[in-house]
Amino acid sequence: MPKIELNAIEQLNRTGYPPPFDQAVAGRHVRRLAPATGLSDFGVSEVTLDPGAWSSQRHWHDGEDEFMVMVEGEAVLVEDDGRTLMRPGDLAAWPKGSTNGHHLLNDSDQPCRFVVFGGGTCTGGGYSDIDMLFDADGRYTRKDGTPYDAVRR
Amino acid sequence: MPKIELNAIEQLNRTGYPPPFDQAVAGRHVRRLAPATGLSDFGVSEVTLDPGAWSSQRHWHDGEDEFMVMVEGEAVLVEDDGRTLMRPGDLAAWPKGSTNGHHLLNDSDQPCRFVVFGGGTCTGGGYSDIDMLFDADGRYTRKDGTPYDAVRR
Repeated sequence: MPKIELNAIEQLNRTGYPPPFDQAVAGRHVRRLAPATGLSDFGVSEVTLDPGAWSSQRHWHDGEDEFMVMVEGEAVLVEDDGRTLMRPGDLAAWPKGSTNGHHLLNDSDQPCRFVVFGGGTCTGGGYSDIDMLFDADGRYTRKDGTPYDAVRR
Repeated sequence: MPKIELNAIEQLNRTGYPPPFDQAVAGRHVRRLAPATGLSDFGVSEVTLDPGAWSSQRHWHDGEDEFMVMVEGEAVLVEDDGRTLMRPGDLAAWPKGSTNGHHLLNDSDQPCRFVVFGGGTCTGGGYSDIDMLFDADGRYTRKDGTPYDAVRR
């Protein structure tokens, strides 16, 4: 199929994060491209971040590889090791099972845009900077196992 | 892990295509990013095409979804339906099983660069414009089943 007409695909602006963790992603807009284009072997999303928005809370996946391609504007990649400026054409990979959490912040005054890929099977994961984990069924818990009243989506 | 240092990853310039089909990809340079970054849930390659080079013979996969992100320069996507100019930030998806073959041509006078993703299982596929198929074991045959003396790689 030819070039994807992004404007024809719904842009989602939602999160399952319990408050107050939802605030950081209020300016995140996501198009889920795999179902829209008939792909099922991996997930693909186009993500646009308004100035100030985060891609997610800083997180890792126990069972899913991730990869990103920066396509427009600038974002800051934050990991255990520090911060990296990502510009169009820059790439990053996050192997499943590493607990070195990652996320992208738009610290600029313009929107930024990237494409993110995910494969494997959701077996849970966690968040580096807050007291939260997620399980294979999308439930959020504190690190002591007590649940949040929220479901990942 | 932080931004991928592409210059640290070997750039391959080879093909298993039997002659004369190998000529079109002589100016194609590929970095295989999944093994280099510890990913196994899907394949990822950075592809650079010299002016005049093709990404591949026009092909399809029976069992593997593909997706591409254009990151630098311009390429022409060719499919059954015609030609589409791809510029940085443009995206295309090719669901497995569709026999609408695709490839990218660098018809410009500058190098172009894109990132391509593949998932699923190799069960074979074919080529739209030449008398060739490939099987799950990487063998090339003519459409009547007679083999070429060449192995896909």
